[in-house]
Amino acid sequence: MARNSVIRNTSRGVSSRPEHVGQNAKVRNGYVVGVDIGGSNLRVGLADMRGNVLGKWSASTKKNSSPAAIIKQICEGVNYLLHRNSLRHDSLLAIAAGAPGLTNADAGVVIATSYLKGWRHVPLRNLLESALKVPASIENDVRVAAIGESWRGAASGVRDFAFLAIGTGIAAGIFVNGQIVHGKHWAAGEVGYMLVPGTPEAAAKPGMPGSLESVIGGEGIKSQWTTALNGNRDSLPQNLNATEIFGYAKAGSPLAKSVLDRSARILAYAVYNISLVLNCSLFVLGGGVGASASLLEATRRVLRSYNEPVRPKLTLSALGQDAQLIGTIRLALETAESRSLHK
Amino acid sequence: MARNSVIRNTSRGVSSRPEHVGQNAKVRNGYVVGVDIGGSNLRVGLADMRGNVLGKWSASTKKNSSPAAIIKQICEGVNYLLHRNSLRHDSLLAIAAGAPGLTNADAGVVIATSYLKGWRHVPLRNLLESALKVPASIENDVRVAAIGESWRGAASGVRDFAFLAIGTGIAAGIFVNGQIVHGKHWAAGEVGYMLVPGTPEAAAKPGMPGSLESVIGGEGIKSQWTTALNGNRDSLPQNLNATEIFGYAKAGSPLAKSVLDRSARILAYAVYNISLVLNCSLFVLGGGVGASASLLEATRRVLRSYNEPVRPKLTLSALGQDAQLIGTIRLALETAESRSLHK
Repeated sequence: MARNSVIRNTSRGVSSRPEHVGQNAKVRNGYVVGVDIGGSNLRVGLADMRGNVLGKWSASTKKNSSPAAIIKQICEGVNYLLHRNSLRHDSLLAIAAGAPGLTNADAGVVIATSYLKGWRHVPLRNLLESALKVPASIENDVRVAAIGESWRGAASGVRDFAFLAIGTGIAAGIFVNGQIVHGKHWAAGEVGYMLVPGTPEAAAKPGMPGSLESVIGGEGIKSQWTTALNGNRDSLPQNLNATEIFGYAKAGSPLAKSVLDRSARILAYAVYNISLVLNCSLFVLGGGVGASASLLEATRRVLRSYNEPVRPKLTLSALGQDAQLIGTIRLALETAESRSLHK
Repeated sequence: MARNSVIRNTSRGVSSRPEHVGQNAKVRNGYVVGVDIGGSNLRVGLADMRGNVLGKWSASTKKNSSPAAIIKQICEGVNYLLHRNSLRHDSLLAIAAGAPGLTNADAGVVIATSYLKGWRHVPLRNLLESALKVPASIENDVRVAAIGESWRGAASGVRDFAFLAIGTGIAAGIFVNGQIVHGKHWAAGEVGYMLVPGTPEAAAKPGMPGSLESVIGGEGIKSQWTTALNGNRDSLPQNLNATEIFGYAKAGSPLAKSVLDRSARILAYAVYNISLVLNCSLFVLGGGVGASASLLEATRRVLRSYNEPVRPKLTLSALGQDAQLIGTIRLALETAESRSLHK
């Protein structure tokens, strides 16, 4: 049984140094499952109590993303992974899932999401526990990615950092004093709405992109490109995504470079503003757009002169697309451990 | 002696519900002193172990603000207050001071300040302990004001809030999960440098005002006024401070109103940005400029449409100019209590 009791009962208590989880619980010879629920894909990972990933399974969430359909898919993935590893269902000790929206981790409810056809107040934890008969935890997807990076990624051992996910939308998973920050209404880190010089001042409408993400989210960068091409003679294609545009910038296209530089400047302002609030040790950049090395370098160049009071430090995600899945496994290990303490 | 041990040994552990401090320690019949060290004035307050303020003393720091001179003045104030209340020096149990600059509360050192003729690495806690022979704590001035508002002010009972001090400079004292946030380099809350639409994009130079405070700090509002007057026929005086300008705005001057509205818009953007990071329950506005009811109302009007994901809630400081002194008394009570537990 556990040799200490520092592990908390809820995900609010996730700490940045969780190695003892595996140490304490491995004697139980059980397994946990982490689930990354995305707007397009669902990924399931099976791990032992040291956090070693034994297998992954994925499926599309595009066709049917009702809560019942998602739970059914998760069960399918869990059963597949247990079977493939010749494990009985009763060796499964806990499950944790990350959901792409406003998530009340204490109540276990997805409050709202603009993905998954707009879930509202879905009691995801209860649904998982009923379907799988094991303790479950849920958390916002960007926060689980931050938990992943804190556990086994770029922020390992760092007590104060922000994981900045830049994809279609933009949000941050924030650790302060080794604890994840949720905020009063579970909305901490919704920095996609941030207002900086060069982003629209108008208030965001419900369901629409925020000011920051409308310029440097995936779609925002695409439309920067379209605007930049407009009226300019250029042999480059009209329809490029952020990664492709940044690739052309690196290859020397002045037009693509202007989009990269503008994106980097605006990202630098947002990072600087967050840093002024938190004075965190590190920013970890992730997500489809945020994982770009060109964007990282260009953003660092802008930040070189922003030294007052402290220049923010940036790095790329170490776990990449796996950050969320790894984070949910970490959360599942905590769930297994904390629930077993209370049995 | 103490009936519980929730009180931490350092100011990093300041919690928002400190009533037990007085409950536990009052049996000792001792007293504590809080000191608010400002750029222009020094204020000393004597309190009993319930936090009742028995007397205040103040002096100017303008003539001589060397560490030795400040310590001498503090001793003078402490001796005066003890004498006037017919108390012996050995009834003094602890002292705490708030300093106007980057302050390492753990080490007890004022790292840097642009006030007090630019103190650098002043071991203020040791100086206080040597001079007064009692345990001492120090903290940044805006954070002690936040501690004051959390203890007996507008944020009483609120675990997640930001105290926003707007005077010549701008900074925030931030509570997350009932704990004050310091940041990696003790620089959390230095939001006077924030970049929002309508503030300069250039990086701040050392010792110079930050982007946000250059527009809506006291001097920033004065220069907005000068610019607004320039080329406009108006019978109003050239040389007005922020409070006077806001007064003329209330009285109907369109020119003064344009300055108030611009200031409110930019303040609203800064508040919104901080809220996006922290999703805190409440913003408490204080400081010479921030305490203006006209500015509060105008800022609330701007924020009315900024509802995504959560509209920030604003209120005025309840303690006004006393917030810092009350906060240092709170810190001194904690210091008395925590040190006595370890004797």
